[in-house]
Amino acid sequence: MVVTLGPATDGLVLEPTHTPPCAAVLSVGSELLLGDLTDTNATWISQRLKEQGVAVVHHLAVRDDLDELVAALRWLAARVHLVIVGGGLGPTVDDLTREAVAAAADVALDEHPELVERIAARFAEAGMEMPPANLKQARIPRGADVFPPVGTAPAFAMTLLDPNPTRVVALPGVPWELKQLWDRHVVAEVTAIAGHRVTVTRVLHVVGRGESDVAAVVEPMVGGRDDVTLAFLARSSEIEVRLTVSADDRDGALAASQPLVEEVSAALEGAVAAVDDESLEQAVIRQLIAAGQTIATAESATAGGIAARLASVAGASAALVGGAVVYAIDAKHDLLDVPHELLAAHGSVSGPVTEELARRVKQRTGADWAIAVTGVAGPGTVDDLPVGTCVWALAHPDGEVEVHTRRIPGDRAQVLGRLGTAAIDLLRRRLAMTD
Amino acid sequence: MVVTLGPATDGLVLEPTHTPPCAAVLSVGSELLLGDLTDTNATWISQRLKEQGVAVVHHLAVRDDLDELVAALRWLAARVHLVIVGGGLGPTVDDLTREAVAAAADVALDEHPELVERIAARFAEAGMEMPPANLKQARIPRGADVFPPVGTAPAFAMTLLDPNPTRVVALPGVPWELKQLWDRHVVAEVTAIAGHRVTVTRVLHVVGRGESDVAAVVEPMVGGRDDVTLAFLARSSEIEVRLTVSADDRDGALAASQPLVEEVSAALEGAVAAVDDESLEQAVIRQLIAAGQTIATAESATAGGIAARLASVAGASAALVGGAVVYAIDAKHDLLDVPHELLAAHGSVSGPVTEELARRVKQRTGADWAIAVTGVAGPGTVDDLPVGTCVWALAHPDGEVEVHTRRIPGDRAQVLGRLGTAAIDLLRRRLAMTD
Repeated sequence: MVVTLGPATDGLVLEPTHTPPCAAVLSVGSELLLGDLTDTNATWISQRLKEQGVAVVHHLAVRDDLDELVAALRWLAARVHLVIVGGGLGPTVDDLTREAVAAAADVALDEHPELVERIAARFAEAGMEMPPANLKQARIPRGADVFPPVGTAPAFAMTLLDPNPTRVVALPGVPWELKQLWDRHVVAEVTAIAGHRVTVTRVLHVVGRGESDVAAVVEPMVGGRDDVTLAFLARSSEIEVRLTVSADDRDGALAASQPLVEEVSAALEGAVAAVDDESLEQAVIRQLIAAGQTIATAESATAGGIAARLASVAGASAALVGGAVVYAIDAKHDLLDVPHELLAAHGSVSGPVTEELARRVKQRTGADWAIAVTGVAGPGTVDDLPVGTCVWALAHPDGEVEVHTRRIPGDRAQVLGRLGTAAIDLLRRRLAMTD
Repeated sequence: MVVTLGPATDGLVLEPTHTPPCAAVLSVGSELLLGDLTDTNATWISQRLKEQGVAVVHHLAVRDDLDELVAALRWLAARVHLVIVGGGLGPTVDDLTREAVAAAADVALDEHPELVERIAARFAEAGMEMPPANLKQARIPRGADVFPPVGTAPAFAMTLLDPNPTRVVALPGVPWELKQLWDRHVVAEVTAIAGHRVTVTRVLHVVGRGESDVAAVVEPMVGGRDDVTLAFLARSSEIEVRLTVSADDRDGALAASQPLVEEVSAALEGAVAAVDDESLEQAVIRQLIAAGQTIATAESATAGGIAARLASVAGASAALVGGAVVYAIDAKHDLLDVPHELLAAHGSVSGPVTEELARRVKQRTGADWAIAVTGVAGPGTVDDLPVGTCVWALAHPDGEVEVHTRRIPGDRAQVLGRLGTAAIDLLRRRLAMTD
């Protein structure tokens, strides 16, 4: 394969060492190397490049040090077709990306009067004079293509010719600026290198089944296909099934993948809680609103965490009524009138008490559905029950209450997260059945 | 400066290009480059190395590809004294760190019978036979020092001699295994390179004041001191003041920093919610338990999120009673008997309603303190109030209720998080006053 780069390459062609075209992310900032900040830009950029069919082969982070930055640029330029640099475009002495790219390209920095004007105008809008330091941001390596700033930092792209033509795209490290510039300018830069072939990853969020169990179902369905790449990712409360397909454009890839998404969902028999960017919580709120129904919760172990997860969805107020946080044993009586005798007979983490909590919070709030949970999140035990013992109940619109008990593995945070997911997912499955 | 490395260097000494001794983190795994996972190991390792006085100059991530891994090792070995490798020690064909280090060192892999035995024993404990693939994990580059596995993957350290002596420490990528091996073995490896000088960063979590305001107080207090490095980090709901000090050992650094931590805390007049690893929630639960007092919540906008945040602290059940999630307007009446007339007169997001919620949930639960919150988290508005309008109230043990109203900036998640923080922090300040 021979890849021809953009106009600045003067007809040079690149014999790539990798097929498909490959890229690196170079993140600039001492705060990354001090461990004060985790590099989430590299993750985001990698996802975007993968969608356009570009393989990312290196993430490299360097301090605000000119020599180190130039050495990193040179090493990466020898290895990839495209380097995305994030950071180092601000106005302070620590912002060295402009100087480093100029040094790596062996060119001068030119001051762009239209950028000086633009930066000065931004300060004027805010009623301030431009500090002299900001002049620096208008100096761009000679021969680069300038991207006008969305914040205060002009960004740019240029081609390094030695040892191979490599396109370097320099963006601010501030995530929202980087993302806006990506859509406006970088997508086209990537297309120039990768062509129009795009890759889309469809994500199926599977709740309530284990990774090997899910793999045993899905692998035979995808195994024979060259056009689909399959991956599994185990998260704390769910398994992600990731199906990656390529096509000439995004719509084509979505269309090509849709039958497979539906087949896999069907084969997993209701365990697919949501697809792509939707979360379990969003799926449940969407289903409730579509059904014109409401939900209340009575939460002991999770202490309001389930209601808060549902309330995190914009528009939740159309479906979420509220409920009770019945953390202490007395709260179960004082807030929802669970009889003292029932609590004494069974203990607070029990099927009968959890069932009663669901029934009573539904009654009190008039909600169509009600979730109740109790459990032992640890590290201490309750009534000598082992840590991880959890009970969740769902009161249906017809008044029936179903109760589930399981020992959930993990530390305190994991037990609470997984208990909440199990309860919300139970509601999702029941709503899907009544569609 | 001349740094003498461990025994395997045979008397060679290293002329470092960086002072103090410097290191790199090499993370191995295609999932990082695909954007499926963010490299939090690199952040954690950097913090640990900084504490021992080692500057991290590069983070580099590579795919599961032998050539790329060897090239990365060689490039880093030429540039730093210590390379921490995370990942690639599992049993599958994709796990290539052992082969790559052996190739970079130009040595063979030796099978260690005691490791074979150990791995087989782990499988036997689980009632399984060791799959042949796992034999691979017992093969270690010749001359390496072996770290016995905490999970299933043996780890190791060895010294590359070319072009300079560089210590390579290879650890599993699974965070909990990596962290355990760090404490057991890597701290000593780092001490061998960096000496016993350690650096400790004290973190003051400041809530309720802005970054520039905090900086104006703290900078003059630290400005003149060579032995302290000061940094500020703005998080969503707090400002971190980071004071880094060096000493011969950890206890010495803690002792040296303590007076400064106390001076800065005093100067910030109660805005320091917690110090070091403690969270705001942990601080409040600790204060409540010390006072023998309890807390209940009545939450509209945050929908149980405040109670859930308090319940995330182990031992919270000694202080958290529970409360009500009064999300819908009717829930405020149905669960806590807020009069319909009050709701109609003022609207649900209002001082009088929020005050009433706090008073009634305290009464109903018998808690000593009660928090109530209402607000407009967006994107929709309530009663034409602007998005971000928030009210929080705190009922004191004597029955007095104080109410605060503010417009909180940010998106839905930020408004809810910051409202919760403001309410919890108000309780913390009042508890501190009654100490």
